[in-house]
Amino acid sequence: MAGSSDALSRFHAVIPAGGIGSRLWPLSRAVAPKFLHDLSGSGHSLLRDTWDRLAPLSGKDRIMVVTGRAHRAAVEEQLPDLRDANIVLEADPRDSTVAICLAAAILQHREPDVIIGSFAADHIIGHLSLFESAVREAVRVADAGYIATVGIRPTEPAVGFGYIKQGPSLEVEGAPTARAVESFVEKPDLATARGYLRDGGYLWNASMFVSRADVLLGELAKTKPELHQQLRELAAAWDDPATRGPAVDRIWPRLEKVAIDYSVAEPAAAEGRMAVVPGQFRWDDVGDFASLAKVNSGGRKADLAILGENARVLADASSGIVVSQSKRIISLIGVKDIVVVDTPDALLVTTTENAQRVKSVVDALKLQGSTDVL
Amino acid sequence: MAGSSDALSRFHAVIPAGGIGSRLWPLSRAVAPKFLHDLSGSGHSLLRDTWDRLAPLSGKDRIMVVTGRAHRAAVEEQLPDLRDANIVLEADPRDSTVAICLAAAILQHREPDVIIGSFAADHIIGHLSLFESAVREAVRVADAGYIATVGIRPTEPAVGFGYIKQGPSLEVEGAPTARAVESFVEKPDLATARGYLRDGGYLWNASMFVSRADVLLGELAKTKPELHQQLRELAAAWDDPATRGPAVDRIWPRLEKVAIDYSVAEPAAAEGRMAVVPGQFRWDDVGDFASLAKVNSGGRKADLAILGENARVLADASSGIVVSQSKRIISLIGVKDIVVVDTPDALLVTTTENAQRVKSVVDALKLQGSTDVL
Repeated sequence: MAGSSDALSRFHAVIPAGGIGSRLWPLSRAVAPKFLHDLSGSGHSLLRDTWDRLAPLSGKDRIMVVTGRAHRAAVEEQLPDLRDANIVLEADPRDSTVAICLAAAILQHREPDVIIGSFAADHIIGHLSLFESAVREAVRVADAGYIATVGIRPTEPAVGFGYIKQGPSLEVEGAPTARAVESFVEKPDLATARGYLRDGGYLWNASMFVSRADVLLGELAKTKPELHQQLRELAAAWDDPATRGPAVDRIWPRLEKVAIDYSVAEPAAAEGRMAVVPGQFRWDDVGDFASLAKVNSGGRKADLAILGENARVLADASSGIVVSQSKRIISLIGVKDIVVVDTPDALLVTTTENAQRVKSVVDALKLQGSTDVL
Repeated sequence: MAGSSDALSRFHAVIPAGGIGSRLWPLSRAVAPKFLHDLSGSGHSLLRDTWDRLAPLSGKDRIMVVTGRAHRAAVEEQLPDLRDANIVLEADPRDSTVAICLAAAILQHREPDVIIGSFAADHIIGHLSLFESAVREAVRVADAGYIATVGIRPTEPAVGFGYIKQGPSLEVEGAPTARAVESFVEKPDLATARGYLRDGGYLWNASMFVSRADVLLGELAKTKPELHQQLRELAAAWDDPATRGPAVDRIWPRLEKVAIDYSVAEPAAAEGRMAVVPGQFRWDDVGDFASLAKVNSGGRKADLAILGENARVLADASSGIVVSQSKRIISLIGVKDIVVVDTPDALLVTTTENAQRVKSVVDALKLQGSTDVL
């Protein structure tokens, strides 16, 4: 156990807080993205819940948040303990490789033997002790030189998530459940998802990555050498106010947008350097209103989930979800699997079955120039 | 034709403008009842449309409106040509016998040989020349001593309306299509309504009554002698400011609440004194949102009807009706036969199938004390 706590003493958490969550419009928007909302009924934003989950593992001084400049004030309000040095403001979004690997490079520039763990700002997680033990194992696996992820044991044949196919056990000390990642697989169709669930060897990909910074960046250096070099330069200039601005101005516009799944995770898996720790905890990426309804009704499909402070909802023979951000009376009669999202300037009415199509509304509003409500 | 225009020269229109229209909540409310709304997309309130339909028949000086005291300002704003002497303000609602027969008594007190025609303030009518010719016939029939109604030729097996069973032709000069009313029948079930439609001898009861005032009040004197006497006293006191108030204070609280169907129409039909002129025009009482959807989509069920000035609605694969009274963007995705009524302080989401149940929401809101939105 000494080794474990040693590794954990070098652990820094990174929270990429980007992404609007278009499929949660009009709740989630450019000015108030998903991670700033309380979507779990916890009374706190998803970002704050993420912080509260990670602080016991890393300590509050070692959580770095990567977010857009527009969200600085909101993030600082949500996270009063966030150190100034630990907020990385992106000039504009450059996808997950830049967000995570820049944080890794900055942290490694400060502390060469750092282990970083990246966790999305807008997921919902339950059973925190199980989450913590999975991350602790992942840190041990990372210390052994792997890039580790935490995969979620599926509870249903979900088609909205990517999957991780587990390989053989890795026999890492202090990480008894860790296995090699055989491969990552894209979102499946329902029949395939059912097969994965029966098989038992597949886990949901929850986009959690835990790795020594040198290992992570070494992998990036092999697959994306130019991007790696650019991030190293940015990191070297980052902590000096005199050099950061010029470096950002010069380098940022040329940074390649690529998901870390493609730049690092899949290539590392192919080389046998990717590990997975199965997580038994409740997890959801709350990708759309169907997912939000499920998460907030305890999985009881016949129920109507109600989200929103002081919501005034009068429902008869109705199920699905109501999100109330106004003070209006909302009355539902005989509507099943309905989605009603009531905000001061926009109203959405759809069904859980159509939840994935919400993004198309955002696209249509963009096209017609109704950017005031996006 | 000389006789016809003689009778028409004695014709006064009466518009009872009462009733909240609970099944149209939250559009229609105590402070803004159904008749004050534009439900047909005409650009005018239903009350104003009713006035505009009747003015060519009676002249603007001979239209009387019976309404609640609370609606005086709104009614006068809608009807700038309404004479002061022709607005009858009810201390509180006393059902249709009082509304119509008090108007008849006041008018007869002014002009003994008056013929009155009563027409609801909140119905939608199309094909105005057909409406006019039906009313002209009804006035001739009334002049001949009958209490006349105009019945609507059914276009579908409606279960939301009462029906009139036609008897033999009446052979009244200038009213070639008038027939005796054999009986009034209550709202039928679907099988019965289908039978009525096949039979061809049944018309929808549109609550239009045309009668000589003396005939109407004579009928009331037989069935409800006390009420008749009270209305005569009120009418005699009405036009003198010194006597009206005391008479109202004394008599109004004791007035019996009874629908004119029971106090006059059904007894008159049983005596063979009730006539009906079939109307071929488009008519709807817009009793609920299903009816409102139908009226505003031209009967095309696959369409989405949109009501509301400057409504901003973005709909995909949706049908039913949206009523927009806010400036919000309203987005619908994949919702069929939906009813969305968006007002500044209340939102209703239901389906056309459940439209009749909207009244139960109003009852529930009353019970829980949410009278601010009723």
